Amino acid sequence: MDSPAPYSLKQLADYIDADIEGDKDCMIDGLGTLKDAQPKQLAFYANSRYKNYLAQTSAGGVILRSSERNAYAGNKLIMADPYLGYARLTALFVGDAASSPAIHPTATIAGDVKLGADISIGPNVVIEGGSVIGSGVTLFPGCYIGKNVVIGDDTIIYANASLYDGVSLGQHCIVHSGAVIGSDGFGFAPSQDGWQKIYQLGSVEIGNGVEVGANTTIDRGALGNTVIADGVKIDNQVQVAHNVEIGEQTAIAAAAAIAGSTVIGKRCTIAGAVGIVGHLAIVDDVHVTAMTMVTKSILHSGSYSSGVPMNETRQWRKNAVRFNQLDSMARQLKLTKK
Amino acid sequence: MDSPAPYSLKQLADYIDADIEGDKDCMIDGLGTLKDAQPKQLAFYANSRYKNYLAQTSAGGVILRSSERNAYAGNKLIMADPYLGYARLTALFVGDAASSPAIHPTATIAGDVKLGADISIGPNVVIEGGSVIGSGVTLFPGCYIGKNVVIGDDTIIYANASLYDGVSLGQHCIVHSGAVIGSDGFGFAPSQDGWQKIYQLGSVEIGNGVEVGANTTIDRGALGNTVIADGVKIDNQVQVAHNVEIGEQTAIAAAAAIAGSTVIGKRCTIAGAVGIVGHLAIVDDVHVTAMTMVTKSILHSGSYSSGVPMNETRQWRKNAVRFNQLDSMARQLKLTKK
Amino acid sequence: MDSPAPYSLKQLADYIDADIEGDKDCMIDGLGTLKDAQPKQLAFYANSRYKNYLAQTSAGGVILRSSERNAYAGNKLIMADPYLGYARLTALFVGDAASSPAIHPTATIAGDVKLGADISIGPNVVIEGGSVIGSGVTLFPGCYIGKNVVIGDDTIIYANASLYDGVSLGQHCIVHSGAVIGSDGFGFAPSQDGWQKIYQLGSVEIGNGVEVGANTTIDRGALGNTVIADGVKIDNQVQVAHNVEIGEQTAIAAAAAIAGSTVIGKRCTIAGAVGIVGHLAIVDDVHVTAMTMVTKSILHSGSYSSGVPMNETRQWRKNAVRFNQLDSMARQLKLTKK
Repeated sequence: MDSPAPYSLKQLADYIDADIEGDKDCMIDGLGTLKDAQPKQLAFYANSRYKNYLAQTSAGGVILRSSERNAYAGNKLIMADPYLGYARLTALFVGDAASSPAIHPTATIAGDVKLGADISIGPNVVIEGGSVIGSGVTLFPGCYIGKNVVIGDDTIIYANASLYDGVSLGQHCIVHSGAVIGSDGFGFAPSQDGWQKIYQLGSVEIGNGVEVGANTTIDRGALGNTVIADGVKIDNQVQVAHNVEIGEQTAIAAAAAIAGSTVIGKRCTIAGAVGIVGHLAIVDDVHVTAMTMVTKSILHSGSYSSGVPMNETRQWRKNAVRFNQLDSMARQLKLTKK
Repeated sequence: MDSPAPYSLKQLADYIDADIEGDKDCMIDGLGTLKDAQPKQLAFYANSRYKNYLAQTSAGGVILRSSERNAYAGNKLIMADPYLGYARLTALFVGDAASSPAIHPTATIAGDVKLGADISIGPNVVIEGGSVIGSGVTLFPGCYIGKNVVIGDDTIIYANASLYDGVSLGQHCIVHSGAVIGSDGFGFAPSQDGWQKIYQLGSVEIGNGVEVGANTTIDRGALGNTVIADGVKIDNQVQVAHNVEIGEQTAIAAAAAIAGSTVIGKRCTIAGAVGIVGHLAIVDDVHVTAMTMVTKSILHSGSYSSGVPMNETRQWRKNAVRFNQLDSMARQLKLTKK
Repeated sequence: MDSPAPYSLKQLADYIDADIEGDKDCMIDGLGTLKDAQPKQLAFYANSRYKNYLAQTSAGGVILRSSERNAYAGNKLIMADPYLGYARLTALFVGDAASSPAIHPTATIAGDVKLGADISIGPNVVIEGGSVIGSGVTLFPGCYIGKNVVIGDDTIIYANASLYDGVSLGQHCIVHSGAVIGSDGFGFAPSQDGWQKIYQLGSVEIGNGVEVGANTTIDRGALGNTVIADGVKIDNQVQVAHNVEIGEQTAIAAAAAIAGSTVIGKRCTIAGAVGIVGHLAIVDDVHVTAMTMVTKSILHSGSYSSGVPMNETRQWRKNAVRFNQLDSMARQLKLTKK
């Protein structure tokens, strides 16, 4: 929508293609949870564990499924997927990302850089030679863009992120502050004089619509590229090692770490703090729960886990010492059965 | 104390409210461990496992408990909590944090920013429009302060940290280099076209006396704020997801990760590399040991753990394969008992 | 070699001291894997699991062991350690790191900083008073170098890294973007008024030939220094706490975290996402596998592990709940045996 908030419920219903019941002209200036929304805010009801808030909410309206329309007496926006409706509406209420005039005079841009139209380059941004910056790109203050980097249209890079030489990023990507893309993969050959550095000759290739979280690191390939496909979403502090490949629409939560040359399929979800060792293959539609240690390839879609449950420390200790007796216990049990 | 080091033992005893025995005029120019302290350094004795160093120390004096006064023949500062005494004295011997003239000419500060008295703003700092910077604040080089940020008096932000729009920080906070506060929470709704971004409409609200470690990330709220209460201490590389709330005086060690909407109570200690899944509640005075996986709410104060003990790899493998037989073993054992 | 690529096979063989068989004048302009190398690229064969690619490769030549010379019909560079040969050759094909003129006019360098010959200091670099920068050093844009920092000859620091006051770095080191060296160790003493900050009076001392990965953090010592010896290689997002000591040639993979005052020996390898608690000692030549939780000192060289294997979530749950019955199972088993 071109105009700023507030919007009428009718305008919002049209924006997300919802049916409307109630006061179409009710003006809405923000979004809120069922629990906390104010009369000028719109809420959504998608998860039955919040049902008790539905009757009590002060929201000016609620997005809900047709099957729930009788559970709420106020203004309703009715659609099959209220959570998706809410997600789409957030775009109307977020502030403008751009933070600086077109090209700030303190930016340092090499002479041969190609700049698209309508770009916003903040203070102290540095763009090295040979890079190509698409139209509508926003580079926040202090970003570093190395040589021969390609950034697609409408991509946003937040403050103090660093892209090394040769990295390519697609269109409509978001890279958060402190992210580092294209740093050297961790490659060393043992020699009599200690570790011999293996210079990393590949780069990083990122598709369209990818989000890279704050302080996430994505290393360049040793030979060939590290590849992140279209629509991949990566949270904060994720480590993606050299020559990893991540398939379309896969989402990786914070603090996960993926070692070198592992290939992850499409539409996977990797939860927080998962560790995946190197040189594995994970097929499409795999879901890995939080803190799982993945040490072998995953050949079938499904949900995978590892780890042991939390307990009071005193109880945990008693059980944990037994872990080192497990094999012996299993053998004794076998004998006992006989 | 207004004067710089050295200080007499008498001055130091007065500063930490300790009794003194020995040469009151002995001049001290630094602090050291019992093992390594030099004759012009003051040491402390708080942990009995260092008792053997007490007789041998070359320190010019030792802070110790009254009950230990006979175990050491040299100059003594006597108080109930020698470790706290040492902690307080460190403030006298640390260098000055400020690293630049009042406002460096290369800083880029929007016209409507409100600046308090006695501030130090380093080279290449950027402060966007609408922000309010308290008195006595120090911003190191390359910090990025977004729009409408509020920073309380005497807060220090080290080099290359990034604060997104709308973040508020209390007084006497310390934010270390590379920390990112206010980046987008990881919110996406599944749709037929892939992940639909949920723009994050909340912000981050940080109380007084909070420390945020290097390269730690604290995401802004989806709806409503992520909230860090007074006196919380957060180490390096900690991930705090959207809408997390952390209670007063809780301390979180390095590499811990806390998923979205989890609420942690007061005076908790979360050890290093702990993972806490989302939407949990943890009460006050809970202690979680290193690398624990927290997958359910903690309703009672106490100490909690998970994980299995380290072993030689060969032994570990034998036991680890048995983990996947545990349920079957338990059933067999039950049968055997019968 | 002084000239740029391409090189003849003869030149490359001489550079890595390999014997040559086949067309000595074949010109090579890059390196590739056996699988993907083009006719003008050189490949290497070091791992028998890629044997099937050896017959099919399009590479212009292959580095291999003498024992494998009959398995490949094309041009050969023959040497005892083909992987090391490949590693050495990568230096010939990597781009030039330097990214900016000698000293960029936007750099802010205090008057008393000592600068060596042939240095490259990028835009917006800040160097505070008293620092000493060796010859041949490259500082990428946005680096922050605090007061009294020492950087040895030929060291490279990539964009937006931050070195706090007093840090010393040896020669031929590489520090990647976003790394933070010398931030405060996490030290607080409990008091009735909450946590009392222990100002960190030590610093960080890094030897020669050390590599520090992107967004890695190395804290300064509380009293005395954090010490990283010559030839240590540290990957991305590693946390090294105050007063840790790491011995020569030890390599630490991404997302590992080492708590305070732990001492690690020489030539160890610490795999990804390992956690090591504080105040431990680990001897030389210890290898710790991925995600291991190290809670006690390691007194003998060897390989160590912890963790439980991944399983389908449904199966994992059944076994995981039994973990909390392990002690009871062990006791029952003992009784049953009797």
